Amino acid sequence: ATSAMAQFAKPEDAVKYRQSAFFIMAQNFGRVGAMAQGKAPFDAKVAADSAAVAEYMSKLPWAGFVAGSETAGSTKAKAEIWTDGGKFKDAADKMQAEMTKLAAAAKVGNVEALKTAFGPAASTCKGCHDNFRKD
Amino acid sequence: ATSAMAQFAKPEDAVKYRQSAFFIMAQNFGRVGAMAQGKAPFDAKVAADSAAVAEYMSKLPWAGFVAGSETAGSTKAKAEIWTDGGKFKDAADKMQAEMTKLAAAAKVGNVEALKTAFGPAASTCKGCHDNFRKD
Repeated sequence: ATSAMAQFAKPEDAVKYRQSAFFIMAQNFGRVGAMAQGKAPFDAKVAADSAAVAEYMSKLPWAGFVAGSETAGSTKAKAEIWTDGGKFKDAADKMQAEMTKLAAAAKVGNVEALKTAFGPAASTCKGCHDNFRKD
Repeated sequence: ATSAMAQFAKPEDAVKYRQSAFFIMAQNFGRVGAMAQGKAPFDAKVAADSAAVAEYMSKLPWAGFVAGSETAGSTKAKAEIWTDGGKFKDAADKMQAEMTKLAAAAKVGNVEALKTAFGPAASTCKGCHDNFRKD
């Protein structure tokens, strides 16, 4: 935790780091979701590119959940992230695994594959928000 | 530009997208820079990982510079980004090329390679800030 904290000049930067990663992920994930849900026309290239960015971004937020940043800045993080770290890590790992599946599905090039992978991935977003993010 | 704008629900999201990408890039680039400048102890793995993230992030901000987002949100973007788009694109391409060189140098595993690549990469940050970002 000490070496992780040393990555950020101040706790607010750690909060901004994780929020920035989630925002970029959500923008790309949302674009894929709009296609999976028939709210936007399917574009195989946009789907593949967006899902690939979402997958990459899914790896980044965790570095920002360092000790000392629990209540910093504009965070909506619940204390459970730090008091129940094992459960949080499991949820984070699950989300990353689903994003990897989604990125693979998006490469297939048809909207059915995307639909199949989108629901489980979206569930991992919601699960973590329900348990670890304040409203 | 129409299809790019369609990626974002509102102009503020486009601004937040590009700012988020720059922030994550800058945090990782700064970590590499601290090592290159002798302000932090050299750690080959942290340098390689951070430079790889900086390289990846260097590709993302540009999608956020869409028509309609010139003065939205908390942007510091100068009008020249849109009125002199060719020059802006050249600067963006140059920055990405230097980030790729930095990521390659960071994989070498010694601080001398990092020092050689850091300066030119930092110059591309400054060049773009001088020409295209308000103080």
